[in-house]
Amino acid sequence: MFNDFKLMNDRPVYMQVRDYLKEMIKKGHLLEHQKLPSTRELSKLLSVSRNTVLTAYADLEQYGLIYAIKGRGNFIGKVETSKMPSIEFHWKERLNEVTLLADELDLMKQDVLSEKGIISFNSIAPEEKLFDVENFKRAFLTRMSIEGDIVLNYGYAKGYKPLIEYLLHYMQLKGVDISNKDILITNGFTEGLDILLSSIAKKSGRVLCENPTHHAALKLFRLHGFDIHGIDMMDDGIDIEKVEESLSQGTFDFAYLIPSYHNPTGIVTSSEKRAEIIKLFSSYQIPIVEDGFNEELRYSGSHLAPLMTFIGPGNQVIYISSFSKILFPGLRVGWILADKELIHCLESVKRARTIHTSTLDQAVLYQYLHDGYFERYLKKARSVYKKKYELARQACNQYIPFKRMTGDGGLHLFIELEEGMNARVLLKKCYQKGVVFYPGDVFYSDGGGSNTFRLGFSRLKEEDIVQGIKIIGETLKNEVGS
Amino acid sequence: MFNDFKLMNDRPVYMQVRDYLKEMIKKGHLLEHQKLPSTRELSKLLSVSRNTVLTAYADLEQYGLIYAIKGRGNFIGKVETSKMPSIEFHWKERLNEVTLLADELDLMKQDVLSEKGIISFNSIAPEEKLFDVENFKRAFLTRMSIEGDIVLNYGYAKGYKPLIEYLLHYMQLKGVDISNKDILITNGFTEGLDILLSSIAKKSGRVLCENPTHHAALKLFRLHGFDIHGIDMMDDGIDIEKVEESLSQGTFDFAYLIPSYHNPTGIVTSSEKRAEIIKLFSSYQIPIVEDGFNEELRYSGSHLAPLMTFIGPGNQVIYISSFSKILFPGLRVGWILADKELIHCLESVKRARTIHTSTLDQAVLYQYLHDGYFERYLKKARSVYKKKYELARQACNQYIPFKRMTGDGGLHLFIELEEGMNARVLLKKCYQKGVVFYPGDVFYSDGGGSNTFRLGFSRLKEEDIVQGIKIIGETLKNEVGS
Repeated sequence: MFNDFKLMNDRPVYMQVRDYLKEMIKKGHLLEHQKLPSTRELSKLLSVSRNTVLTAYADLEQYGLIYAIKGRGNFIGKVETSKMPSIEFHWKERLNEVTLLADELDLMKQDVLSEKGIISFNSIAPEEKLFDVENFKRAFLTRMSIEGDIVLNYGYAKGYKPLIEYLLHYMQLKGVDISNKDILITNGFTEGLDILLSSIAKKSGRVLCENPTHHAALKLFRLHGFDIHGIDMMDDGIDIEKVEESLSQGTFDFAYLIPSYHNPTGIVTSSEKRAEIIKLFSSYQIPIVEDGFNEELRYSGSHLAPLMTFIGPGNQVIYISSFSKILFPGLRVGWILADKELIHCLESVKRARTIHTSTLDQAVLYQYLHDGYFERYLKKARSVYKKKYELARQACNQYIPFKRMTGDGGLHLFIELEEGMNARVLLKKCYQKGVVFYPGDVFYSDGGGSNTFRLGFSRLKEEDIVQGIKIIGETLKNEVGS
Repeated sequence: MFNDFKLMNDRPVYMQVRDYLKEMIKKGHLLEHQKLPSTRELSKLLSVSRNTVLTAYADLEQYGLIYAIKGRGNFIGKVETSKMPSIEFHWKERLNEVTLLADELDLMKQDVLSEKGIISFNSIAPEEKLFDVENFKRAFLTRMSIEGDIVLNYGYAKGYKPLIEYLLHYMQLKGVDISNKDILITNGFTEGLDILLSSIAKKSGRVLCENPTHHAALKLFRLHGFDIHGIDMMDDGIDIEKVEESLSQGTFDFAYLIPSYHNPTGIVTSSEKRAEIIKLFSSYQIPIVEDGFNEELRYSGSHLAPLMTFIGPGNQVIYISSFSKILFPGLRVGWILADKELIHCLESVKRARTIHTSTLDQAVLYQYLHDGYFERYLKKARSVYKKKYELARQACNQYIPFKRMTGDGGLHLFIELEEGMNARVLLKKCYQKGVVFYPGDVFYSDGGGSNTFRLGFSRLKEEDIVQGIKIIGETLKNEVGS
């Protein structure tokens, strides 16, 4: 006994001794009223100091797990044993349909795990090696020294005030009229969209969006019971004529649009089309939910104003975004910028659900932005991703016989094969050769897109981008007929 | 012009210059095709280096806000102006009933703001001055040096693995059989409860709970459309006879219980009653949601095992908790410990809603726990809060003519006045004398409790605790009749 105790070197020793004894008691290796070794003995047996054993025993006594008898030593206390009959619920039968649907629609559970050595075009998460860990630490220490106690205590549901003010100003510099608007900080973009979907009254129960579109948004629309009406993407954004046709035929509770580096097509909606979109939806009194996705990742050309800038002091656009997609996804910070009255109501939903977003995340992000680290990081990140982007584009042009390729920047390209080709068949064959990508059909609202796929290149080495695309192209040419 | 530029000393200067110009353009102070001052001129005007101006101009050019003509200088580019008619939605008309209810039930919006100088017994948040900021920083730096890039990138919906393993072990040491159980990390306790309420099938649509109980839980039950059946609290926990009566008369989708330092009564359910509770609910096949609230805040006596320990390998208890209530509320980290299959489904709900909880929060919390700082902090915190607790109890005994006072520890006491006394009337009078507390009726599921109130003492100075309670007692005796 006591010979299986192993000391870790980075946790207080008395806690290790105490927890070790606790486990032996719970597991029944030490029985009720059994005498424990003296502190001197145990300190020898475990090769720890006697003081360590004394502290461990004191804690165990406080827990009621052992008791001391003066002059006689320490003894094991009453061990609680469960005498109840064990009950086994079938939990799935006690869950509702939405939850079972969430389980079913959970793509992560179906993902082929990226094994080592495989070239995976699945991810559009940022490249970890680029992370600006040192300045992040600096921002943390700065903020903690300014108001560490505030950072660690409860905050406001609406968000950390300095961050809200920073973001309002940031959006103002993009041209947004913020006079009657406000910001709610959320746990990333996803919570922002989810809160909104939970709050919007389902009148028509219909949402209009680009087709294909962001699969996590599609999933949330489905979980919230909305009917999805997807409209084709042209090279400069959504097909505006089809939008008009749809709007004239029936109403929608809202439209969901991703004007920049659209997921999955990578298309950037042109400035002219942005203005047209606002005009059209406004005339039909349909609110727009604008996804600010990766708007910052422009590699060339000039800044395109968000849809929201076109409404001036109007309040029909709800802008949801997050820096975390390109900066630090591990920090869950996003925001909703919208009409003041609307934000005031959404704030209560946020409070009811998650009280508020981590103050730590918000405060460090604020400091990081404020100190200018974000912009410097963006410059570096852009140059790295731009190179990968150009390489991927070039390789696709060279190796893949596509019908259409889109992607005006960002971290991914979207390939449409000739009609009749099946991207999942291609994926299966490529997987055998060590290459995987994201089948495009998951982005379609109408079951289409079987001949499409998305290539995320952000986390791949340059040589793997070319090599992977070459393998996809050759497999397509040699093994997948139409 | 350019004379209202003010330099802050902690943000890169070129960004300040650039954003200043950007604002002037957006506001229309600089007009389309207007020539900008030369870099040399502007550097003098703003008292910054010429290089700073050059960098600022380069950024503005990249944004498309200015353009350069070789040999002639820099000019303001095309200024987008909104020509759309402004639209004003009445957003409240476009929101659903649940959201409007969330707004209505949002107590924070009704709170009397704690003005300076007022003695507020409202809060049961931890005392900021106690926060262990230095060791928290240490834990942060340690974790960042071990895996900073992982901490900052996407994590898993289920949670940060080292933290999950730590918590499983932690609960095992409390006596929980974890063999067929698993953990989902959430944004605090509140998200855990909300995810569960969204997922449980509404069969009877009824929930059984203690009366009074945690108001945020009551709010969530209401928002999720559950009928609430509250059962009186005795001094050793819920009235078990009334529970049996209720169970025999109708079924419930689940029960919600807070066995330790119950909010708001502060009652700790006795060990015997815990066993009885499990036996009773199990025999009726009703799952129990156990709120692990402030379980760690025991000031004396031995450890009381959570309800979950009594079920052995059974799966009918869902344990939801968080360290943040006493440790760092600013970090939003809670967890659900439950049946493996159940957690597997809840994981998909979590992913659909918020992707995952901040990896930064989880990783730093893990390191802080692992390095033993938490236990040391608890020891210190306990001794401080214990003193305040005893002081508050003693003052209540001395000054307040109550019918019943409860609170076996924790951070608050609960006062029941004689029948017919109104705590809100008392509150109004006390507010005039600079003292506020939490009216108890908000904790009641059935509109009762008008003669009760909660006194949170955690953040008050010792002298203010006594002084505040004295004022409440005197006001009660002199100004509030029954």
